[in-house]
Amino acid sequence: MKKIALLGSTGSIGQQVLDVIRFFPDKFEIVGLAGGKNLELLKRQIMEFQPKMFYSSVKPDLILNLIQDEEKFFSMEEMASHPEVDLVIVATSGKAGLSPTLAAIKAGKTVALANKEVLVMAGEIISQEANSHKSQILPIDSEHSAIWQCLLGEKAKPQRLFLTASGGPFYNYSTSQLEKVTVEQALYHPIWRMGRKVTVDSATLMNKGLETIEAHWLFAIPLENIEILIHPQSIVHSLVEFADGSVKAQLSIPDMRLPIQYALTYPQRLHNLELPRLDWNKIEALTFELVDCERFPCLKLALDAGKSGGTYPTVLCAADEVAVELFLAREISFTDIAKMVQKTLEQHKNITQPSLEEILAADAWAREYTTSLSCHRRANLWANKL
Amino acid sequence: MKKIALLGSTGSIGQQVLDVIRFFPDKFEIVGLAGGKNLELLKRQIMEFQPKMFYSSVKPDLILNLIQDEEKFFSMEEMASHPEVDLVIVATSGKAGLSPTLAAIKAGKTVALANKEVLVMAGEIISQEANSHKSQILPIDSEHSAIWQCLLGEKAKPQRLFLTASGGPFYNYSTSQLEKVTVEQALYHPIWRMGRKVTVDSATLMNKGLETIEAHWLFAIPLENIEILIHPQSIVHSLVEFADGSVKAQLSIPDMRLPIQYALTYPQRLHNLELPRLDWNKIEALTFELVDCERFPCLKLALDAGKSGGTYPTVLCAADEVAVELFLAREISFTDIAKMVQKTLEQHKNITQPSLEEILAADAWAREYTTSLSCHRRANLWANKL
Repeated sequence: MKKIALLGSTGSIGQQVLDVIRFFPDKFEIVGLAGGKNLELLKRQIMEFQPKMFYSSVKPDLILNLIQDEEKFFSMEEMASHPEVDLVIVATSGKAGLSPTLAAIKAGKTVALANKEVLVMAGEIISQEANSHKSQILPIDSEHSAIWQCLLGEKAKPQRLFLTASGGPFYNYSTSQLEKVTVEQALYHPIWRMGRKVTVDSATLMNKGLETIEAHWLFAIPLENIEILIHPQSIVHSLVEFADGSVKAQLSIPDMRLPIQYALTYPQRLHNLELPRLDWNKIEALTFELVDCERFPCLKLALDAGKSGGTYPTVLCAADEVAVELFLAREISFTDIAKMVQKTLEQHKNITQPSLEEILAADAWAREYTTSLSCHRRANLWANKL
Repeated sequence: MKKIALLGSTGSIGQQVLDVIRFFPDKFEIVGLAGGKNLELLKRQIMEFQPKMFYSSVKPDLILNLIQDEEKFFSMEEMASHPEVDLVIVATSGKAGLSPTLAAIKAGKTVALANKEVLVMAGEIISQEANSHKSQILPIDSEHSAIWQCLLGEKAKPQRLFLTASGGPFYNYSTSQLEKVTVEQALYHPIWRMGRKVTVDSATLMNKGLETIEAHWLFAIPLENIEILIHPQSIVHSLVEFADGSVKAQLSIPDMRLPIQYALTYPQRLHNLELPRLDWNKIEALTFELVDCERFPCLKLALDAGKSGGTYPTVLCAADEVAVELFLAREISFTDIAKMVQKTLEQHKNITQPSLEEILAADAWAREYTTSLSCHRRANLWANKL
């Protein structure tokens, strides 16, 4: 039995992790569950899986009212580093996963990571700590899982990575069309069913920018050697090119349970009747197009922030999180997301090789600054400033 | 320096092996060269690479007239098992590679195999001997190299293999169109430049049937779990489906030097400026279609012979070799190839788990029988018999 601490159990990825675990009750045991603000769901999960540890990252006090078992109440850091845990699944979002991931790594745990901001914000620190504590980081994102699967057994570093992107629902929209995109349109992703934040990030292609930075840290590949291919069918999840020109790709019906299951069962693969299979009689032509970054301002901002390094990627993440929240609250337009992130990055004074404290300070600064932009806007000033 | 014996150096694959070796003069040393009937080319190769051993499988006496150095004259079996050899490349064709491959395996050598008939005819014997002598067989065929690359580092056997096929030049031809196919048309392959025999086999899809049997033995996968996908762009060289539904594929510009180089450099990959790279701005849509075996009689004959096992695959190979020669000599039509192979298989009395002698006897019988069909035909009898 692999003993698992699942952080972020009530989110989209967390729920799908539990789906996979339900399918293999004799392979995995949930020993820790940490959820977010959906306390009713978290309570149901705790009743079902009877973990030894539980937590709510958003409302720690309120979950104790629902589950009155103080002895089992552990912080995410305690859970992630607990001696009984074999595998820590970090399915939180934003910066919430940062500190527990570091705790897990310092305890030498294997970490399955779905919370890409952890590596975007603190890739250098995380990589160094993982190396010195011999902690393995397994990707859960479908693109990174694809690359990981393609790298299995290869002796040398690849030459180039190709992250695929569906292009999102607005790939062929003009700027004037993009300005009118509604929240409802942005939350409808043509292929993947995901959380609201990542769905909007997919529509702006910010998500692909964050994934590029994530891939850079996960696989120790220079950002210049990571390319993005628009692949609307979302069957090929990413590709790797090797020194000799050979390219390997990983394919499947888009279903997050597959990369989740692989991170759980690695290095084995288990048969799972619930996972869909590719049916070659039904697959349309697969198309690929190298992305033109200029057309997607969020993508360009992310790649530039990644190349500049330091605290820029943290500021990018924080500004984007605030801007996407404002968009979802219908306070700004879809195209304002990129403008607010850009403005915040422009005003940031970069710190190279930042400490964790400096990263968290940059995060706090960026959230405040981006929020202030929105307040100015309400006073009809912001629009002119941009 | 990896020391190499190259059997079949004057054929299409053999010449490309030497091309790759020319590119890495400090990595590989040719210690043995065995060519076929093109003695002038073989002589030039011997002058260039100065091997310690040489041979001509077709005209052993005549090459000694050209290269008067009897001390360096070794049979292919001696070459393949010589203590100085690290890697034996079997790039012969037909049954010529069978005995030297067995000699190499019994000497515990690593064998890079391009001569698919070796495994089609004697897959069971070859596999058993390779296991008991811990000899590794590395594939050179692009499809099998693709599967091998996709299996690297995987712990468990895959669930299904998908061999891709361009479909050849006549994929959409009607039966009446196929009857009129000329030698010139059959020798023009849309993608690959290969020897004459394998080009005709590609056009009949016999080649894909032989490759299916080859894959069955190389990867120990039941024939029922090997499928064929028509993929006219020939970019994806084959695919592997695992227990969890994940599929891995290997892609490249079609160029035999890539799988050849990988077999030479494995487990490393070397940068080679001469090998073309995929340019995603130029790649058309990739399409895949499960093959309908009924439409391709040679493919169906091969798969049936593979499933029946015993000496049937040997008879298939031998009858096909004779029939293709007759077609190339303009003695029979393109569609007669399948008819002659089928007739020969129907007349064969199968031997299960045959010895090498029984395999060679079945080969000899089939060649004689298929040739006799053609003689009858000349006497205007054959056409009625079919």
